[in-house]
Amino acid sequence: MTQPILLAGSWRVSQSAGTFQAEDPATGEKLPEVYPISSWADCDAALTAAAEAQRELARLPATRLAEFLEDFARRIEARGEALIATAHAETALPVSPRLSVAELPRTVGQLRQAAAAAREGSWALPTIDGKAGIRSCLLPLGPVAVFGPNNFPFAFNSVAGGDFAAAIAAGNPVIVKANSSHPGTSRHLAEEAQAAASAAELPPGTVQMLYRTSHADGERLVADPRLGATAYTGSRSAGLALKRAADAAGKPIYLELSSINPVLMLPAALEQRGEQIAEEFTGSCLMGCGQFCTNPGLVLVIAGAATEKFIAATAERFRAAPVGTLLSGGVARSLQESVHRLIEAGAELLAGGTAGGGRGHSFSNTLLRVSGRRFLERAEALQTEAFGNASLLVVAENSDEAAAVLNQMEGNLTGAIYSVAGADDALYARLEPLLRPRVGRLLNDKMPTGVAVSPAMNHGGPFPATGHPGFTAVGMPASLRRFGMLACYDNVRGDRLPPLLRDHNSSGAWRLIDGAWTQADVPR
Amino acid sequence: MTQPILLAGSWRVSQSAGTFQAEDPATGEKLPEVYPISSWADCDAALTAAAEAQRELARLPATRLAEFLEDFARRIEARGEALIATAHAETALPVSPRLSVAELPRTVGQLRQAAAAAREGSWALPTIDGKAGIRSCLLPLGPVAVFGPNNFPFAFNSVAGGDFAAAIAAGNPVIVKANSSHPGTSRHLAEEAQAAASAAELPPGTVQMLYRTSHADGERLVADPRLGATAYTGSRSAGLALKRAADAAGKPIYLELSSINPVLMLPAALEQRGEQIAEEFTGSCLMGCGQFCTNPGLVLVIAGAATEKFIAATAERFRAAPVGTLLSGGVARSLQESVHRLIEAGAELLAGGTAGGGRGHSFSNTLLRVSGRRFLERAEALQTEAFGNASLLVVAENSDEAAAVLNQMEGNLTGAIYSVAGADDALYARLEPLLRPRVGRLLNDKMPTGVAVSPAMNHGGPFPATGHPGFTAVGMPASLRRFGMLACYDNVRGDRLPPLLRDHNSSGAWRLIDGAWTQADVPR
Repeated sequence: MTQPILLAGSWRVSQSAGTFQAEDPATGEKLPEVYPISSWADCDAALTAAAEAQRELARLPATRLAEFLEDFARRIEARGEALIATAHAETALPVSPRLSVAELPRTVGQLRQAAAAAREGSWALPTIDGKAGIRSCLLPLGPVAVFGPNNFPFAFNSVAGGDFAAAIAAGNPVIVKANSSHPGTSRHLAEEAQAAASAAELPPGTVQMLYRTSHADGERLVADPRLGATAYTGSRSAGLALKRAADAAGKPIYLELSSINPVLMLPAALEQRGEQIAEEFTGSCLMGCGQFCTNPGLVLVIAGAATEKFIAATAERFRAAPVGTLLSGGVARSLQESVHRLIEAGAELLAGGTAGGGRGHSFSNTLLRVSGRRFLERAEALQTEAFGNASLLVVAENSDEAAAVLNQMEGNLTGAIYSVAGADDALYARLEPLLRPRVGRLLNDKMPTGVAVSPAMNHGGPFPATGHPGFTAVGMPASLRRFGMLACYDNVRGDRLPPLLRDHNSSGAWRLIDGAWTQADVPR
Repeated sequence: MTQPILLAGSWRVSQSAGTFQAEDPATGEKLPEVYPISSWADCDAALTAAAEAQRELARLPATRLAEFLEDFARRIEARGEALIATAHAETALPVSPRLSVAELPRTVGQLRQAAAAAREGSWALPTIDGKAGIRSCLLPLGPVAVFGPNNFPFAFNSVAGGDFAAAIAAGNPVIVKANSSHPGTSRHLAEEAQAAASAAELPPGTVQMLYRTSHADGERLVADPRLGATAYTGSRSAGLALKRAADAAGKPIYLELSSINPVLMLPAALEQRGEQIAEEFTGSCLMGCGQFCTNPGLVLVIAGAATEKFIAATAERFRAAPVGTLLSGGVARSLQESVHRLIEAGAELLAGGTAGGGRGHSFSNTLLRVSGRRFLERAEALQTEAFGNASLLVVAENSDEAAAVLNQMEGNLTGAIYSVAGADDALYARLEPLLRPRVGRLLNDKMPTGVAVSPAMNHGGPFPATGHPGFTAVGMPASLRRFGMLACYDNVRGDRLPPLLRDHNSSGAWRLIDGAWTQADVPR
């Protein structure tokens, strides 16, 4: 029995073009459930229902979406045990602390933050020019297609994660393309989403889910006139193919692609606390078997005795640490290929480099090393993302060479600098300006793998880490703004305005009125 | 003598691939000055100097750019007479009120508003999460290439207009591609810009100007790794070619392309004040010879006696009004082609339709009419933009047909609805939701041709009016945000933060601190 898809408010038989099964990465064996690969007919039906839902949602108050998100969060908690078991079976990520203590609570927390943002409305940057009679805010831009990644079955899941929460909170229906590596988790989540949507009496096409499409249909979907925008998290090649299609149709597409998240360790820091940094770095790099968007995949150090000590201490830790299970055979293959590409480009193995070593799909904890000089000769190849438990140390001969290496860095989600206040200040002042424009989030003395759901967070960055350097995928309210169109009202009387722009501030939103941010009503 | 270009702080001989001259549209004669068509060598030199300027600007306080913009505004005023004479010669736009009373004051006003925004910093949406130790704001995203349009020699000029002001105020150097129809005006402006930049001791590549490049070099320019972003205003075909190139390189490009700015006139409004609306519409449509981005190019009405009276009154006014001079021979040819395309698609001429009738390059004031039924058959062709003094009336048989017509509308900068409170309310409630998502600015009982420089303005809209529905080209501070990258600081100590994110709020910017907008310091 092939699993049904969620279309226009009910679970229906897919007009499928094939089927697939997920596998248990810890055993390499296929899981029993069979899922459909949708044909264009499914996509077409989803688009039509979503466009209809958009029109109906525009007539409902934002509180309805907030109630939906909150109810959905409660339902996820109630079904937590089954969700965690399924996610564990499909991803091999540890039940505790990862799935149960960290990721599931984060996911429901995000949904609740999104609900609060929807209810209150400040995310839409309501702006009122009283004298000119002009008012504007962001309004929903249309149905959003969400393509989630494989590495967070809850927190970035297409049907419950950050992009979903933000797109819904901004007032848009979502067409979910579940990640093929955890379809069962997605199904559980979508069942709860649909139950919550029905309870909130949302239009039937508010949440829809397909499990998989052909690449061609995916490209057609993101370019369809009925769609508003797309959010995609995943591999660079697939993301760029979708981007080409969406760009040609003038449809916004928000991408989170590969990132190697350079970490620069300045000499005094390694001098003073090299062992501690080795510990921190190893922990960050191997956590979740290295399968984080913000995994520190490149470490830039400057040659010296303390640096060699740090490298030796790190290599030892990489060798000693248990080897985790990767998310899928595909991830394992891709990691192996990437490590080989780095070696071919001149990197030398300090630890790992071989397949296996853990349960199921696995690859030994891998640490590589290359000189700054060599890096400069093969900068592109040596920035290959090795998604998984691997990292490359780039040892610059001196600070000039470190500067040259930074000048070759591509756009990344994060960049970190470890330093000692005082002793490293001059070097920090010289090198930080080279790193800053190349990364979305700059950290000091901290590994990048934690991504707090904070209003000040940027989980974004310059191309090719993402498709546009002005947006973040994590953090309320900013992540909602990706899914809004700027809508201006010129000389429109009060009862024809959206509630957010009326004189009376019914939701208590922050609004920019005549140049000042306030929660007050428009003064008479 | 070929005019020099402005490169890296000085006026230099172009490594040109050819030359061109502007012409006086009122006589069709070439103006004497000869301008270079730059080769890639000029573009390459400009990019290198701009990238260097970007690094230096990052070290300067925002006040320096504010001082530059204010000094530039003063210098434009001081040279006002010569500027107006040159702009008049190159565009045939009337000296008064258009150039001297309206456009030049608007231009210096924009520069001063941009200066204020730069000095104060709120535009960058500084956001502080005290507890998590995370802070973020927009930072300059890199050199901006500005391609200005032909229709506003001052207010949207590549070297003095809204995009220029916003890009500079956001902290970026600008590479100006002057519009080829007013190179002399651009030269005067760039001379003043360079004098002001020198006086402010800005880095040499802060303002650079080329007059023209090949299409291929333009596409290479917008995709160059040294560039941060592009702002383009002009024709759809040239804009989309640049967009393809920029998109492929992952470089943000902000476009303002064609727009026909539909105006919906509801029955009671035509009943009650048809004559007055005919007068208003004719004025708006023929102002500046119709060469406004927000010119009302399509009027949707519902069949009836009052509608026929309105149409007759409008046609009479179109025939009686003096015929203006168009900006260039190219504009005249393109207008003729567009009118012919509309006629071929089924529109009927009510007035005009022939070349000439005014001084120099001109085309008779043209009013066309088509049925709603026919429109639905040829919706794409009947949305051809006829840039100039022409407009198309679409007469729907009833409100259902009007709804169907609205459902076929492409993305536009503006949409207007004329109505009578009470009598038209039901129809307004039905049709407004169809128009709203298709336009950036929705007006009531007002023609769209005025674009106030207001914080609440949206001079933007859904594709293909622009390239992204979330941004505006007019209005501070929002227009600056196009040229910022989101930069987050995680666990970075105070003296390493940009001034805007430090505890002490030195510029008095509005900042979102722990969920509340405030101008205060971060509390201890």
